[in-house]
Amino acid sequence: MTLAETLAAIRPADTSAAVRAAERHVRLTKPPGSLGVLEEVSVRLAGIAGECPPPLPEPAAVVVFAADHGVYAQGVTPWPQEVTVQMVANLLAGGAVVSALAPAAGVSPVIVDVGVAGEVADHPGLLRRRIRSGTADMTVEPAMRRDEAIAAIELGIALAHEQVAAGRRCLLPGDMGIANTTASAALIAALTGAAAAGVTGRGTGIDDAMLAHKVAVVERALALHTPSVSDPVGVVAAVGGLEHAATVGLILGAAELRVPVVLDGVISVSSALVAAALAPASVDVLIAGHRSAEPGSATALSALGLTPLLDLGMRLGEGSGGVLAYPLVVAAARVLREVATFDDAGVSEA
Amino acid sequence: MTLAETLAAIRPADTSAAVRAAERHVRLTKPPGSLGVLEEVSVRLAGIAGECPPPLPEPAAVVVFAADHGVYAQGVTPWPQEVTVQMVANLLAGGAVVSALAPAAGVSPVIVDVGVAGEVADHPGLLRRRIRSGTADMTVEPAMRRDEAIAAIELGIALAHEQVAAGRRCLLPGDMGIANTTASAALIAALTGAAAAGVTGRGTGIDDAMLAHKVAVVERALALHTPSVSDPVGVVAAVGGLEHAATVGLILGAAELRVPVVLDGVISVSSALVAAALAPASVDVLIAGHRSAEPGSATALSALGLTPLLDLGMRLGEGSGGVLAYPLVVAAARVLREVATFDDAGVSEA
Repeated sequence: MTLAETLAAIRPADTSAAVRAAERHVRLTKPPGSLGVLEEVSVRLAGIAGECPPPLPEPAAVVVFAADHGVYAQGVTPWPQEVTVQMVANLLAGGAVVSALAPAAGVSPVIVDVGVAGEVADHPGLLRRRIRSGTADMTVEPAMRRDEAIAAIELGIALAHEQVAAGRRCLLPGDMGIANTTASAALIAALTGAAAAGVTGRGTGIDDAMLAHKVAVVERALALHTPSVSDPVGVVAAVGGLEHAATVGLILGAAELRVPVVLDGVISVSSALVAAALAPASVDVLIAGHRSAEPGSATALSALGLTPLLDLGMRLGEGSGGVLAYPLVVAAARVLREVATFDDAGVSEA
Repeated sequence: MTLAETLAAIRPADTSAAVRAAERHVRLTKPPGSLGVLEEVSVRLAGIAGECPPPLPEPAAVVVFAADHGVYAQGVTPWPQEVTVQMVANLLAGGAVVSALAPAAGVSPVIVDVGVAGEVADHPGLLRRRIRSGTADMTVEPAMRRDEAIAAIELGIALAHEQVAAGRRCLLPGDMGIANTTASAALIAALTGAAAAGVTGRGTGIDDAMLAHKVAVVERALALHTPSVSDPVGVVAAVGGLEHAATVGLILGAAELRVPVVLDGVISVSSALVAAALAPASVDVLIAGHRSAEPGSATALSALGLTPLLDLGMRLGEGSGGVLAYPLVVAAARVLREVATFDDAGVSEA
């Protein structure tokens, strides 16, 4: 599917199914509203599926898009850029956090090289879909060309189609890429109008001096490109990353196919802002896995109107927050499917 | 085991194993601290087990203690008291929320009649361990005699031993009992010194007038008994419930056996305050599953020094919050066991 075809195919959630889910909750054997945010998630799942009760959103895949960032040259992180290549190998070998946590949660890791700068060793699990070997330095020129951004988005759309064709009923975007919180901050600032200082964080854990420098780097990139929300592809091309563009596509493809997406941290949510700017109805398939410790996470979630399921001070990426939240999403659907009604169970009401 | 024997056998967490866990986190292939609260939980699990990495805390059981409350007569809830009996049947039939969610999370529901007021129909899954048929009205007399409170605590200790002998490596207290948030509020006020108005909540969802009345009922019970934290058994006998006393025992038994306990809402956390008053080291095995919408939950968790894993506005009980948090607890142990170190994975450090 091309980006244009996918955008044309996206429809909003089914309000009728969502209303039926909310009504069903009142008849289940529990005090009305007593499952809090979990009830909202279950109503959302019904709206996405267009069915009440909604199907269980399983199995799932966490699609980890790996890419490098030209802005690394500006000294925004203490980690060597080679860590991206090394962590791709670690992800494929099962040693990364998301590799350890995903299978136990019923989530299959899918590792995609969408734009790593260095050589990635062969592995049967690696999807080689590189658009280019890392972005350009956004403080000097656009991170990528417009056609490259579209190619990366369409790669994400294709991956959504592939995963759903393979039976996955829930998609979790993940990421790996040194310096990708810098690009995320630039995207969030550009798309929400927030000041760079308010949405730029410590990423992997930088000190005050490097944080001040990182904010200045984001400000310089924004001043150079003056990206506008009216041209979302232009925004991601100017100050985004290849994993952001691919995640935009994954979200749009999931929205087209009406499959829920459980977001992770700032890479996920900044990409979701781009998807929302391209297709506002794509937000309907999104579930916020967690609020990252990165300040841009809360800003983006608020702009998207999403309530995070977890708030554990995490800032790891890889899709780890989505994987940890995923059992709650399945549980939300399960409540609507399996809990007895007052009538069926012969339980008196208040 | 008697209560006295169990109290004598409880030891604090193994600080050395906890320190080794914290040190191990720094060597794992992720930014230090990037898993936030999950890292704290994993360190706690190492301290409980006395091993680093700790064993996976699975499988688990959610032990749902059902009981009725004499204070029901004071009009503190709009639900008929017969709902306790009806919900026990629903729990056994698999129609309650915790029945639907627990098995999918690898948690076995164990349903115990520790003090229901009415007749409970036979079911092969029902554990009949009734101490008495509901408590007395605490606004008139002590909820139970001191020997009954001790019997209920020792029942909980016995259940912890039974479940661990059956292979369970994590225990989740659950509850079912109309009016049990009233007793919970009285316990939390008595044991933390908080005002009744600050820790008494809407339970299943009562209106302002009934809430004001419920606060007054709690205040009257506290004024009648003047329960003192220096006599924890006396506190639970005066203003607690049979499910509270049994939960105290479950926690103490788990502490004796060094098995982690994932707490649910106000019934769980108010019982944990009693356990902590009897054996301060029992707090070391506790993990807070969630912050309930009931205001006493946050007060009790703060007094216990526990950070809740979930904060979803839930107020259901049954152990549902513990069951929903349980996968995060297993994930915390899994990170320490399965994530590669920088050295092993050949990943460069910052």
